[in-house]
Amino acid sequence: MNFKMIGYVLAMVLKLEGFLMVLPLIVALLYRENQPAVVYLICIVVCLVVGFLGTARRPKNAVFYQKDGFVTVSLCWVLLSLVGAVPFVLTHEIPNYLNAVFETVSGFTTTGASILSNVEALSHASLFWRSFSHWIGGMGVLVFILMLIPMRDGSHMFLMKAESPGPDVSKFVPRLQSTAVILYKLYLFITAAEVITLLISRMPVFDALCLTFGTAGTGGFAVLNSGIATYTAAQQWIITIFMIAFGVNFTFYYYILCRNYRAAVKMEEVRVYLIIVLVSIAVISVNISGIFSTASETIRQAAFQIGSIMTTTGYSTTDFNLWPSLSKMILVMLMFLGPCAGSTGGGIKISRVIIIWKSARRELRNVAHPRTISKVKMDGHSISDEMVRSVQVYLCMYVILFFVSLLIVSASGFSFETNFTAVTATFNNIGPGLDAVGPTMNYFAYNAVSKVVLIIDMLAGRLEILPILLMLLPSTWKRKD
Amino acid sequence: MNFKMIGYVLAMVLKLEGFLMVLPLIVALLYRENQPAVVYLICIVVCLVVGFLGTARRPKNAVFYQKDGFVTVSLCWVLLSLVGAVPFVLTHEIPNYLNAVFETVSGFTTTGASILSNVEALSHASLFWRSFSHWIGGMGVLVFILMLIPMRDGSHMFLMKAESPGPDVSKFVPRLQSTAVILYKLYLFITAAEVITLLISRMPVFDALCLTFGTAGTGGFAVLNSGIATYTAAQQWIITIFMIAFGVNFTFYYYILCRNYRAAVKMEEVRVYLIIVLVSIAVISVNISGIFSTASETIRQAAFQIGSIMTTTGYSTTDFNLWPSLSKMILVMLMFLGPCAGSTGGGIKISRVIIIWKSARRELRNVAHPRTISKVKMDGHSISDEMVRSVQVYLCMYVILFFVSLLIVSASGFSFETNFTAVTATFNNIGPGLDAVGPTMNYFAYNAVSKVVLIIDMLAGRLEILPILLMLLPSTWKRKD
Repeated sequence: MNFKMIGYVLAMVLKLEGFLMVLPLIVALLYRENQPAVVYLICIVVCLVVGFLGTARRPKNAVFYQKDGFVTVSLCWVLLSLVGAVPFVLTHEIPNYLNAVFETVSGFTTTGASILSNVEALSHASLFWRSFSHWIGGMGVLVFILMLIPMRDGSHMFLMKAESPGPDVSKFVPRLQSTAVILYKLYLFITAAEVITLLISRMPVFDALCLTFGTAGTGGFAVLNSGIATYTAAQQWIITIFMIAFGVNFTFYYYILCRNYRAAVKMEEVRVYLIIVLVSIAVISVNISGIFSTASETIRQAAFQIGSIMTTTGYSTTDFNLWPSLSKMILVMLMFLGPCAGSTGGGIKISRVIIIWKSARRELRNVAHPRTISKVKMDGHSISDEMVRSVQVYLCMYVILFFVSLLIVSASGFSFETNFTAVTATFNNIGPGLDAVGPTMNYFAYNAVSKVVLIIDMLAGRLEILPILLMLLPSTWKRKD
Repeated sequence: MNFKMIGYVLAMVLKLEGFLMVLPLIVALLYRENQPAVVYLICIVVCLVVGFLGTARRPKNAVFYQKDGFVTVSLCWVLLSLVGAVPFVLTHEIPNYLNAVFETVSGFTTTGASILSNVEALSHASLFWRSFSHWIGGMGVLVFILMLIPMRDGSHMFLMKAESPGPDVSKFVPRLQSTAVILYKLYLFITAAEVITLLISRMPVFDALCLTFGTAGTGGFAVLNSGIATYTAAQQWIITIFMIAFGVNFTFYYYILCRNYRAAVKMEEVRVYLIIVLVSIAVISVNISGIFSTASETIRQAAFQIGSIMTTTGYSTTDFNLWPSLSKMILVMLMFLGPCAGSTGGGIKISRVIIIWKSARRELRNVAHPRTISKVKMDGHSISDEMVRSVQVYLCMYVILFFVSLLIVSASGFSFETNFTAVTATFNNIGPGLDAVGPTMNYFAYNAVSKVVLIIDMLAGRLEILPILLMLLPSTWKRKD
């Protein structure tokens, strides 16, 4: 492994985090929060000093193999979280470091699972940092860093592959770095659109910024204890639409940008995604019709919760833990499904489910008609057997990790529904589960071991398992290879 | 498809079922149960007449392809269940035909999920028929029939592949029919051993027979409302040991029979199985230590429930729904895991989990050390990529079918835990789940749609998905191929 290069990239991440913390510092100064301002300033100075020292000399050998790339990405995310948790401890807002790390991992992985029962007690600076971590984690930091470091294109690919959600990385243009630039521009543009729309709806600037960060990264940290429930109906609809928009594969927007409308409409994943959203809204609206007084409120509540859960954002405007079991089960299924690949959301991703579904159907066809050779196709192109296999392997690892986590978390003594949805909601980067981790509750009561497992689940969910498992595997660290 | 041959095999099944019903008829006569005796006699006559008419002329073309074989097996199991349910309706013991079919499918698939709250109200004849169906379903009927029909060896293989549990069919001897004979002899021998042991422990003959049928087939229908709870400690231990014994891959016993002890000890699946059983007993014993008064009772209860759940038998001596959540979660995991392939149990099977685990590990190794080529190995032999792939495809289909079933069953309005474990307990052929389908409850309250879904799940679980999906796929029935 190229340890020097790994150290160099880690130092880059530290430097970047130092710069990013300037924003909460500005917020602290604006709101005249002195103690948080000092804390963030210290953190910035330490990050920058260590970061600049670490990047003073560039290693000569800048080549990354797949293993190096995957392990580097995992380590970067761990480092980002360990350092990002420090301000919460120093401001005494989350005195326990493990809890602070849980909260920060939850932020960067865009999960939104919280250990706080009273978020309104936080300083504006920390509230901002918490929400801002969603925005950073949504698009990923490595993708940003690789725009800065000149490397062989192949080395970049491994970094991007490990960090981008979905079974494949779509390159819009031949150069990967240019693709990354386009992605960031799209991300910034839609983020800006949401902030402006929310401001027009007369939401306070601070709330508009924080909630947009959470929507864009499909995170879910709110700034009020009531979540999104106390905002106006119009504001809830704006957030709903943007949540669903951030769950769309960004390739779709790229096609729109290039006026290649035919290719955009042809995207099977996006069509399936929107159909599932609409059908779920219809079914749940009927199922919960008795709970709310008007039809428009019923549809709004259904749409908000579905948009929130399916895109793995995790905002809530109502306690869906009280909904009938069919609606709850649909929400649990959507938790696993997740939005499109190439979006900022978590979960298994629709394209993977399509591939699994089609490969299962092909398998049946092969038994029924052994003389015909059939390929798995998507968007008119046939998918390589290697890709199909990697998706199947992903699902196997997913199932293994899910059940191992569930077993360990069950030792905590909570109900079956609590433990099951706690693992589901962290592993798929959603946030709230059901029962004791429902939308009105939090993860504080879990013991330390369970919290560590859930932290690993959040990271494994965001980085799609392989990089995290690789980092935890002892044989990875043997020198010989 | 070879429709004539399919019809011929179906008629054979009907004939066989007619002969098998002679046993409950004898029971009815012994216990002087007149009405049941008449019912079973009528059923026998009808089965035999139709069966003999259908098998009067053997089709010239006796060749089966894989599709024909798989579909035939599914149809045979459906026919067996539809006909086997008739006596329950005619005796008015289960007046509703759907409920009777549920009970019978549960019997033949060795599930043991019941819709009856008071089994003691049944006649001895019907109690016997219910338990006997477990014994028939345990080893399978097609394996028996193929001993009677001379066919090309390849055609036999497809029938046996569809009916035998596990990712592969192990042939002890080159001829498949001779392998089937050996399997039946082993099955009969261990069954006899259990009956004799139970008789020595002074259990009444009727109970000893019925409970042995349930143990041998890993079914779970009991003859008392209290399940196995009121039998003596010694009798519970006997059943525990035989349950665990019937969960062992029968290849193990064949090796023992041939005095090939080295090969027997080398079987990785059997070793993993026994280790999991022992570790689970240890962990659960500690976890439930406060519930029972003595250590010996604690260990007995833990061992019985683990043996019962892991082998997918489903007998119970206590209401494990009241156990702490760690113990419950371990039981739920064992439900999915199941015993060894090549046993009479359901679930995913240990060999499949070993293959999935090892292939996931290989995948990680391939990323970490791309220059070394590694194969998945078991018992010292390397496993073909085709086999690994088929196991991965199986898991994908398993996950899809599981979630689709769960979604439909959730519309019934029961709790999350109830619906989740109801699908788990039927799909893995166990019987009791948790909460409203726990060991002291039953499946009566589910609506008709849910019952149909659970019936399909039981069949799909017993025949390992592919044959049932193939039967339900419309394209299978198109003439062209």
